[in-house]
Amino acid sequence: MLGEILENVRSRSPLIQNITNYVTANDCANITLACGASPTMSDGEEEAEEMGRLCDGLNINMGTLHPRSVKAMLLAGKSAGSCGHPIVLDPVGAGASTYRRETAEQLLREIPFTAIRGNVSEIKTIAGGKNRSRGVDADASDAVNSGNLEEAIRFAAEFSKRSGAVIAVSGAIDIVTDGTRTYIIRNGHPVMTRITGCGCMLSSLIAAYLAANPKRRLEAVAAAVISMGLCGEKAYEKMKKENSGNAGCRNHLIDEVYKLTGSELERGARYELR
Amino acid sequence: MLGEILENVRSRSPLIQNITNYVTANDCANITLACGASPTMSDGEEEAEEMGRLCDGLNINMGTLHPRSVKAMLLAGKSAGSCGHPIVLDPVGAGASTYRRETAEQLLREIPFTAIRGNVSEIKTIAGGKNRSRGVDADASDAVNSGNLEEAIRFAAEFSKRSGAVIAVSGAIDIVTDGTRTYIIRNGHPVMTRITGCGCMLSSLIAAYLAANPKRRLEAVAAAVISMGLCGEKAYEKMKKENSGNAGCRNHLIDEVYKLTGSELERGARYELR
Amino acid sequence: MLGEILENVRSRSPLIQNITNYVTANDCANITLACGASPTMSDGEEEAEEMGRLCDGLNINMGTLHPRSVKAMLLAGKSAGSCGHPIVLDPVGAGASTYRRETAEQLLREIPFTAIRGNVSEIKTIAGGKNRSRGVDADASDAVNSGNLEEAIRFAAEFSKRSGAVIAVSGAIDIVTDGTRTYIIRNGHPVMTRITGCGCMLSSLIAAYLAANPKRRLEAVAAAVISMGLCGEKAYEKMKKENSGNAGCRNHLIDEVYKLTGSELERGARYELR
Repeated sequence: MLGEILENVRSRSPLIQNITNYVTANDCANITLACGASPTMSDGEEEAEEMGRLCDGLNINMGTLHPRSVKAMLLAGKSAGSCGHPIVLDPVGAGASTYRRETAEQLLREIPFTAIRGNVSEIKTIAGGKNRSRGVDADASDAVNSGNLEEAIRFAAEFSKRSGAVIAVSGAIDIVTDGTRTYIIRNGHPVMTRITGCGCMLSSLIAAYLAANPKRRLEAVAAAVISMGLCGEKAYEKMKKENSGNAGCRNHLIDEVYKLTGSELERGARYELR
Repeated sequence: MLGEILENVRSRSPLIQNITNYVTANDCANITLACGASPTMSDGEEEAEEMGRLCDGLNINMGTLHPRSVKAMLLAGKSAGSCGHPIVLDPVGAGASTYRRETAEQLLREIPFTAIRGNVSEIKTIAGGKNRSRGVDADASDAVNSGNLEEAIRFAAEFSKRSGAVIAVSGAIDIVTDGTRTYIIRNGHPVMTRITGCGCMLSSLIAAYLAANPKRRLEAVAAAVISMGLCGEKAYEKMKKENSGNAGCRNHLIDEVYKLTGSELERGARYELR
Repeated sequence: MLGEILENVRSRSPLIQNITNYVTANDCANITLACGASPTMSDGEEEAEEMGRLCDGLNINMGTLHPRSVKAMLLAGKSAGSCGHPIVLDPVGAGASTYRRETAEQLLREIPFTAIRGNVSEIKTIAGGKNRSRGVDADASDAVNSGNLEEAIRFAAEFSKRSGAVIAVSGAIDIVTDGTRTYIIRNGHPVMTRITGCGCMLSSLIAAYLAANPKRRLEAVAAAVISMGLCGEKAYEKMKKENSGNAGCRNHLIDEVYKLTGSELERGARYELR
């Protein structure tokens, strides 16, 4: 099933509109190409409605937020939504400032998101349970571990039911839930926290996987999360072997997505489905 | 002749002002440095007129368009034009939205472009023959192949005469024409369609080659197109040998431009001049 | 001492707010992660005051300047300053346009900078001794060499006393001075002038080193400059060995910062302290 989801991305090559930040836009575009989809990256409000309609999937990323891009997000989100295209929200640093938290709330009210992906602090913030993060990283006190996993799953499932979106919580253990069924995913490597944009890239992947598999929302999001984690593991192995660092690892990560096959994804996946 | 054109870039080190998108700006700056030129990348309308005057060549790229950057393009284009500096237009995704098409039309009316480079769908759109593209990639139905090559050459030559600019149509076969003479170029590799910004980077190269060779417009554009294609071939060989992917290939592509010598360019060029 | 300064960055992991340009933002974020700090990169005026307060250090980079980002710089700079957080200014291309020169002057008037880093032409411009640069590179006529080193040191020390900031002048020979004591640093490699953003990345490093070592301002800036130069040398060796180019070298540079240990920094440092 996971393999088929990836192969659909490669064969259908969906057009993914990313309204994203200027820090990781290049990596997001290259990972979108790596998985077999085709990226557009414009954030102009002048064309947002049209782009939302024309794309096969939309990814909204709050990384470097300003009022013009928020207008573009709202216009593109509404037109993509009215066309039934899948829409992903990445609420980068949602708890880092009042502006971010309020923008996330507005986006959630006005756009019918298909999936929401963030670290645990970001997801807690937008779900209403938290007021403050430190920058764009998850707070150590929020980290999902074996001790609080059950609580985190309940929390994510509840937020999924309330928002209508598949919720993906990234961390040492990833949680992907549609409120009823939950993937608990153990792929990935800590080095990914030292590469800027791993979360942004994953959200682009999720949009691509969803656009190519619109009827299997939960599975598509889980397959994207597993792909990213698995490719992170492979990239780390290469980095270690060649004795490079986080820049080398970033390149390997995108390269591994480029090369990933459906059967490798099936074999490398480490998850539990409840 | 091709080799001399490249060597002039390396020895004269022209200052190239890029008003471009935030997705591929870093790669554009690095490839400008790789070929021996010096990039500036500001898109502020507050300084556009001054930058257009001070630079040796100007590259205008429509990747992530917004009204402020369009003002900067117009101001810089007019001042660069009045100083006789070569100006390149890259009409990224010109057919993807009404805003893009109208902006491209305005730029064409108000700025005396020396060269225009795009994929076949972009060039068709701005030449008035086409209303819609899918994102930023060329439509499959537009692709230049051996069956429609003659028609594509006639079309590009006619647009060159009408616009006064050298026209470069990128694709599996590249066409570079000044309306009278035409280079038909067969360098390059399909992997380049899986690397974001290959077109943007090429347009930066074209601006650098033109600025260092202002009296040989057609040859300078052709030499840049051939350099990019040849370096793409070399980068693909490295990528294949090391079993990497599109991120690795992107780095190799810039590295190959960094290392390319005039004699390698002469030897590796595969083109026909009519 | 140098080694301890680096180790403090790794152990304290300061949060560094970068208001910077879209050309090199990704590299700045990755090098901030590479040295052990945590980057935020937002340039929205809506959240600038809050981010300036919450961060441990602020880096203001004038690369792609526009009125909204200048407002963000002023708001963040004032709030970071009132909290006593270290603030770095990178006056990219300060002499390249009137807008840049005037913006640099305004920033200097309104923000209590801890350190200012630029090439010699940029520093001369903002210190009032120069009106014009060619793009973002230093003018050849300004280059610091053994013949004019004493004069350059006097000039930088005088500007440090006048501005109250540690001054770092980047070039073949780097100068770091607090007006009383001066580091003359001979690490680095000429290839770094062919990689876009080496200056920007260094300014991000300086902010991280300062934030983790707030009471040793001069030493922290010098340690960052030496780290960058030393990692540039190592990156060049790798580039030469693998026969790559400036893109490969950029990745190695960040990787070397990722791997650099305190004892390697001590051993590799080449400087004189007066």
